[in-house]
This record gives sequence, C-alpha cells and structure tokens, in this order.
Amino acid sequence: MNDSFRPKQIQLNRYGQLKHFLTLDGLDKLLLTEILDTADSFIEVGERSIKKVPLLRGKTVVNLFFEASTRTRSTFELAAKRLSADVLNINISTSATSKGESLSDMLQNLEAMASDMFVVRHAQSGAPHFIASAVTPQVSIINAGDGRHAHPTQAMLDMLTIRQHKGQFDGLVVAIVGDILHSRVARSQIQALRTLGAAEVRVVAPNTLLPSDTDALGARVYNDARAGLRDVDVIVMLRLQKERMEGALLPSENEFYRLYGLTDEKLGWAKPDAIVMHPGPINRGVEIASSVADGSQSVILNQVTNGIAVRMAVMSMAMGGMTVEKNELASTQAELTANVR
Amino acid sequence: MNDSFRPKQIQLNRYGQLKHFLTLDGLDKLLLTEILDTADSFIEVGERSIKKVPLLRGKTVVNLFFEASTRTRSTFELAAKRLSADVLNINISTSATSKGESLSDMLQNLEAMASDMFVVRHAQSGAPHFIASAVTPQVSIINAGDGRHAHPTQAMLDMLTIRQHKGQFDGLVVAIVGDILHSRVARSQIQALRTLGAAEVRVVAPNTLLPSDTDALGARVYNDARAGLRDVDVIVMLRLQKERMEGALLPSENEFYRLYGLTDEKLGWAKPDAIVMHPGPINRGVEIASSVADGSQSVILNQVTNGIAVRMAVMSMAMGGMTVEKNELASTQAELTANVR
Amino acid sequence: MNDSFRPKQIQLNRYGQLKHFLTLDGLDKLLLTEILDTADSFIEVGERSIKKVPLLRGKTVVNLFFEASTRTRSTFELAAKRLSADVLNINISTSATSKGESLSDMLQNLEAMASDMFVVRHAQSGAPHFIASAVTPQVSIINAGDGRHAHPTQAMLDMLTIRQHKGQFDGLVVAIVGDILHSRVARSQIQALRTLGAAEVRVVAPNTLLPSDTDALGARVYNDARAGLRDVDVIVMLRLQKERMEGALLPSENEFYRLYGLTDEKLGWAKPDAIVMHPGPINRGVEIASSVADGSQSVILNQVTNGIAVRMAVMSMAMGGMTVEKNELASTQAELTANVR
Repeated sequence: MNDSFRPKQIQLNRYGQLKHFLTLDGLDKLLLTEILDTADSFIEVGERSIKKVPLLRGKTVVNLFFEASTRTRSTFELAAKRLSADVLNINISTSATSKGESLSDMLQNLEAMASDMFVVRHAQSGAPHFIASAVTPQVSIINAGDGRHAHPTQAMLDMLTIRQHKGQFDGLVVAIVGDILHSRVARSQIQALRTLGAAEVRVVAPNTLLPSDTDALGARVYNDARAGLRDVDVIVMLRLQKERMEGALLPSENEFYRLYGLTDEKLGWAKPDAIVMHPGPINRGVEIASSVADGSQSVILNQVTNGIAVRMAVMSMAMGGMTVEKNELASTQAELTANVR
Repeated sequence: MNDSFRPKQIQLNRYGQLKHFLTLDGLDKLLLTEILDTADSFIEVGERSIKKVPLLRGKTVVNLFFEASTRTRSTFELAAKRLSADVLNINISTSATSKGESLSDMLQNLEAMASDMFVVRHAQSGAPHFIASAVTPQVSIINAGDGRHAHPTQAMLDMLTIRQHKGQFDGLVVAIVGDILHSRVARSQIQALRTLGAAEVRVVAPNTLLPSDTDALGARVYNDARAGLRDVDVIVMLRLQKERMEGALLPSENEFYRLYGLTDEKLGWAKPDAIVMHPGPINRGVEIASSVADGSQSVILNQVTNGIAVRMAVMSMAMGGMTVEKNELASTQAELTANVR
Repeated sequence: MNDSFRPKQIQLNRYGQLKHFLTLDGLDKLLLTEILDTADSFIEVGERSIKKVPLLRGKTVVNLFFEASTRTRSTFELAAKRLSADVLNINISTSATSKGESLSDMLQNLEAMASDMFVVRHAQSGAPHFIASAVTPQVSIINAGDGRHAHPTQAMLDMLTIRQHKGQFDGLVVAIVGDILHSRVARSQIQALRTLGAAEVRVVAPNTLLPSDTDALGARVYNDARAGLRDVDVIVMLRLQKERMEGALLPSENEFYRLYGLTDEKLGWAKPDAIVMHPGPINRGVEIASSVADGSQSVILNQVTNGIAVRMAVMSMAMGGMTVEKNELASTQAELTANVR
C-alpha cells in the first residue's frame, strides 16, 4: 500500500493543514484541538443576531447524500449557509445514477461544475475516502458518516461538548453504552478520546452488540452496566439502530432497556457530576429514560448546537488547507512555465 | 385553562407585539391593521428590480411541512428569501420521524441548531399552537395552515386584497361560498372580517358543507346562492377539497356547480363592482367558471401577489417582537446576576 | 400563423435582445456569438476564489421541472446562484398539479409571486414555447430541454467547447453519432453549427435511429461510421437513451457498440486533433469506450464546466432584454397617462 494513500496523508496538505475530513484515524492531538478551538469561535456566531460570516462566500458546497438523513443534512446545510456558501443538495437515490451513470462519472461532473466541497454520506464504509483519493484533486471531502466506519464530525461535536463541561480530557473516564457493533459514532469517539488523552474509555454492551475483535477497539469492555458505569465522568448512550439489527441474536428492546437503558438508577452509579450524551435521534424508553434525557445532567441539546459549530469549523479549515494547496500548485505551475520560457 | 395559554397571550409579547402568528382569534383590529400596513410597504419590494431587503439577514427560517404543499411552501420560501433569511425546507413525511423520533425531540433539535422561525403546516388542528406553547421559548412560530382550524396568513392576504380594492371594511358585505365545513381558510376569514369591521359576513353552502353549529361561525348562513350573493361587495369562493370529502353526503360536482358554482349569471346578483376571490388552486368548472376566474372582477392573482407581501410582513413583525422579548430576557438575567453580586 | 408567434419574434425584444431562450431556430450568428462571448467572460468567474457576481441579485429564478433531471437542474441552480439570484426548485410531479390545477393556473400563480425567470424542462416538445407565448408577459423563459425538440443551452455549451478548442467554426467538419431520432440535443446542435458556419455537419447512425425525413435535418447522413468519421474535426457522441427505445427495431447494445461505439480504432479515422464530445451522462461501453471518454482528445468535462458559464450567460442576457422591455413598457404607459391628462 502506497504511503500517499494512508488516511493521514490524504487528509492533510504538506503543511499539515486539513484538506479533507474523512476519519480521526491518523489525526494528532494538535489538529483535533485546533478543530475544537475553531468550533469554539463559531459558537458565538450562532448566538449573534446575524448568524452569518463570509468565510465561504462564493464557494459551492454539495451535500452528496447516498443515504437519506434529514437531520445530518440539515446541520451541514445550515453550517454551510452560515459560512455564506452556496449549497446544492443532491439525494443520490433519486438522481442520475438511476440512468446508469457511474459514481466516478457523477463526481467528475460535479467537480467540473467548479464545486469546492462534497459532504458525503454513504452506507458503505470507505466511500468518502475512495472519493477523496481516486477522484478529485480540487475538491474537499467531508465525511458525514460512512457505513460502520466513521462519523468524525459527530465525534468532534461530542468532544467539544465534553470539553465545555469538563474543561479538559486528562483524567476523564468515559463510558460508551449500547450498540457498539454497528456504530460508526463509537469508533470515531474512541479514536478522538484516546488522541485527546482521556484516562479511560469503556464500552458497555452485551457480547451480541460488540465486534468479535474487542481488543482492536482500544477500549475496556464491560458486559455489566453497573461495573461499566461506576464512577465515570461521561456517559455516551448510542442509538439502538433497530433497522440494522434484524435477525441478530439480540435481547428484546425491553430486555435491553432493563440491562443497559440509562435510567436514573443507573445514572446514579456514575460520578455525581457525570454528563449524559446521545448522538440522537433518541429512542425514549429503549436506550434512555425520558427523565434522564431531559434531566439536569443531560447535555444532548448542547451536542446539537455544537454540531453546527464543529461543522462550520471543519468546513472552513478544510477550505483553508485546500486553498493553500491550490495556490502552491498554481505557483509551481507558474514556475515551470517560466523555466520553459 | 391557564390564562397564559390563551392564544392572544402566547402570540404577543408583553408590549403587545407579535411573537407567533397562529390564529386571528384574539388579535385586535389595531394589530391586524398593522399587518396590512406593513404588508403594503412590502408590495413595493416585489415591484423593485432588486426584490430584496436585509431585515432577516442571518436568521434561519425552517419550513416545517407535515403536510405537503408546494404552493404554500413556495410563497413562504420566497418571502423569507426576499427578507434575506437562510431557509431550510423540511418535509416531515420523508424525515427522521420515520426513525421513531418524537415530534417534541425533533423540534428541540431544530431549536438547538439556533433556528429563529418555524413555518408550520400540519394536518392536525392546533399543532402550531402546541409547538409554540409546549416546546420553544426562542423560536417564532408561523401557522401555514393547520387542519380545519386556521390559515391566518391566507386570511390576511385576503384582507389586504379587499382593502386594496374597497379602501376599507366599514359597510362591506362579504359572502364566502362553498365547503365551509372543511375550510380553515373560511374560519380565519370570518374572524378577520369581523375584527376589521365588515358590516356583514355571509356563508353560502348546502347544509352538508356547513358545520353542525352554524351559530358559532359568526356569519349569516344562506343555503340559497341567489339570496346569499344579493348585493354583496366581495365574493370568496372556496376550493372544493375533493380529497377531503370522500363518503360525505354531497351533491355531485355537477350539482354543486349548478347550485353554487360562480358563473357570470350568479356574479350578476352581486353588486356591479363586486370583487371575486379564491384561495387557489382553482377547480375550473367545479366551484368557479373560467369566464369569472379570468374576468375583470376577479382579483385572484392579486391575492397571490399579496400573499408574498403579507408573509414578509408577518415574518418580519414576529421576528421583531421576538427580538424585543429576547433582549428583555437578557437584561432581566443581567439584572439578576448583578443583584446576586 | 401570426407573425408574432414565430420563435424569433417571441425570443427577442424589438431591439433584437434576448428575452426568452427557447430554441436556436431563428437566432442569427451575431446573437449566438454574443452568447458565446458572454459565456467566455463567465468562465473566469468559475475560476475565482469567490465564484459570484451580483447580476441577478434580488431576482427570483424558478426551476420548473416537469421531467426530473438532477444534473440539468443542478447546473441551472448553480448558474443562478453564482449570479446571486434567489432560486426556487419546483418538481411538478410532486406539486399542486396533482390537485388538478391547470398548468396555466400554476404558471400565473408563479408569475403573480413576482418570479423573473422560469427554467422549464418538459417531456413535451414545444412546452416552453407555449409557456412563453400564451402565459407570461413579464417572465423570461429558458428552455432546459423539451421532448425531442430542443435543448438550446446544451447546444451552446457544445459550441463554446468547440470554439475554445478549434478557435472558429469556418471549415470545421462535425459528426454527430448515435440516436439522432430521439435527440433534442442533436437538433439544436445542427442548428447552431449551421448558423455559426461550420463547413459540414454529418449525422452517423443506423436508419432505425434516424428520423424518416432526413433531408429536414440539415446534415449529411451516414450509416457507416468509417465513412462518417473520416477526417472530421469534432465527434459528438449521443447518449443511447435506453428508456426511450423500448420496442424499437434496434440493434442490441453490443451490436450498436460494435458498429457505432467510439473506440480508439474509430477515433483514429477522424483527424489526429479531433475532439470528442458527449452531452452526458455517459454509457461507457455502449456508445463510447472508457479509453476514449477519459483520453486526451476527450473534452467531455470541459463541456460540463462550460455548461455553467453558458447558462449564466443566457440567464443574464435574457434578464437584460426583459428589463429593457419592461422599462420601455413603463415609459409608454407613462406617456399614455401624460397624454390623457
């Protein structure tokens, strides 16, 4: 495997600046912290009377959703519009691929329209990485969730929320509870927490909702919720993706709720100032009790607010890294032309 | 029933300014006149070469349509864009509620994205009022039609059209003809006309298209079109909502047209300078003859033009009232904080 | 047939400026060249860091698609947004026409909302012309493809691509290959090439994919690809519209590819510097080999880039012609009013 195809290489330009945002794998603490700091500065924009900055004015952002998600698409659309970009929404299931056009041809066409950024959601793991590596030299790719692989903007908004409430990551114990097996969110969260220096990351789930190779997760595994939640600082509940679990050897919803659903009682096992997170949408009474979701320790709606800020941060940083690279390319070409003369 | 849940209370801030626009019930003549005057000032914007004002720049308006309506959605989208707002269209039938998310959770999420306004269309009466009262302290709600209850922007654009052509409401006799039973438009029109001081409001319909409690309508009931249309100044034809009337004890379309359809002959029973209105879309040959719809007394297309102006007026007024309330809240909090110190 | 309904008359105002863009039929070389020159000036906008000009600021452009086409809709949407227009997308199959509203009523409604431009795609030939002639005095109509009739912006982006690579049209021999019978693109291309002075236009196809009256095409007909491609400067491959050809007396896809599909071998029959074009989306291995589509003589992606520029050009020119006409109308009315006094 060629060096230049390692995620880190493809995500950064030669100055280490973000060009694409595909995965947290290979990104270092400095860069993740830069994303959080930039997002912090955008929080204030959402509180202004005029929620708009001109950073992406005249840029074209294409929401390329191969998998429908009104919620995620809306947050990226709002983030792009608050950065003053022009936004084009393309829902692939209803588009020209039905005419037999190849993915690669479709992407080249969108590039040729002078698009600056593709926000890609895809049911297949690795699709955004494929797009970034194989197809485009001029367009920045943002992963908005690919298969079971990664959901890096979700993980970073979670990190922003943790940092807001806990100040820092040193010494924190974080438990991620539920369907780890099918969760791109959990994968990205574990990477982010380890990179940012959390003391301990736990996953709490029955074996049927854990991958076969739990060692590779980089987290301590607990089947028992009482042990797993004991004295943690942060609880992340995952959504039970009913639509993904048909035919699986699963406890029933009731059984799952009894064993792992976050009730006031279970929340009591964590530290008194523990915060409760959830990527949404919530299944009340399945993975979380309403009293907890709406309780004083819940920061679930903060996550949503932070989601806009983190997406604005990643989009503006990627556009910056891309611009530096383009200018460099242009001056190299100018130099070559000069030498030819 | 708590006082604070009466529509008037919830629609206005403590200075009597519009915060939400849910129903005409409880709004006084002064406020309705202010809406009409503001709309008048926006008519001119639609005639400019650059049809745009910066009143809602940097605001996020979400079109939240639980019931599809390209026509109404388009007028609100255009109104918001001409006020320079960022617009997000969400069609709920295709969105995350299919993932089992509750309405309330979905709304809280949209609020957490720092939305400023929800334009709500819903098949259930009272849905916008529920949203305004139960869910949100920071977001302005505009009713774009709920069940059989109300369609207040439609009624106000009708009032604007009447005022443009008749100068004032004093002394006017207005006949509303057709399917009163299922019509949210008729309900809102009757309220508006009574508040604004029309001399007489008539409803003209067969008993099968009238509510059982006709006294509560606040209008004189006529089963006979000739009597009902005699010497009126304004005729409002309602759309025969075929899709709503299956199984009803109805005359056939032909029979309806013979008895109530507005033909040149029936129009002759009204005053010579009577105007003809219709909320659209028109069923030609069902409730109105083409010669009347396209005739010199028809102001149907003026209604459409006025619809944009009225929606711009209501949106900008509600945003103003909301802003005053937010500032007040902020200064109260600042005061409280100061007292604590 | 009244003179004023001839396409040329309806497309131009009395100063010969573009008001509507429906077909290339009746437009002269001077006007087509003006479109190409204007488009050239917009190419540079697509290369800027801020890809935006304020020419259509405050204008409302409605994409009125009676036939779904994500690709074409996207290019018009991007072109309009880069001109700073407000864009409203209306997909008719899902809109109010399902409520039984007539096309004419729907259009009058959109006009009454102070729309400035309709971009119309329709499966029926002549629909945009009908709309321009019958319905609207104030709205500019752009044909985005109607039935088998015309696709004038596609043809003009092809002309721009040819001019960029060949410098001029004099002396050029152009071959259009494939499904001529069903192609609105081919019809518009032949008109454009003849008007702009190409030396020879050839159509290369089996008789089953040619119209019965080949003389009316204005092109030399070749059934044999080797003869048809010999020494040509430009090859335009058409998309094999599988969905349109069911039941037709057709060669199989394989047979078609063997006889007409553009392979390296067949490309070798053309001039060494011949360029290869295709309106997209491509059927690789059906009408064109991947090695040719991606080869050094292919200008297929340039066509896409030029598509945005040509659409910006046509939109801004039509809006200009429309504005002149409106001002003229206004001053005529002012004069009449003055005379009355």
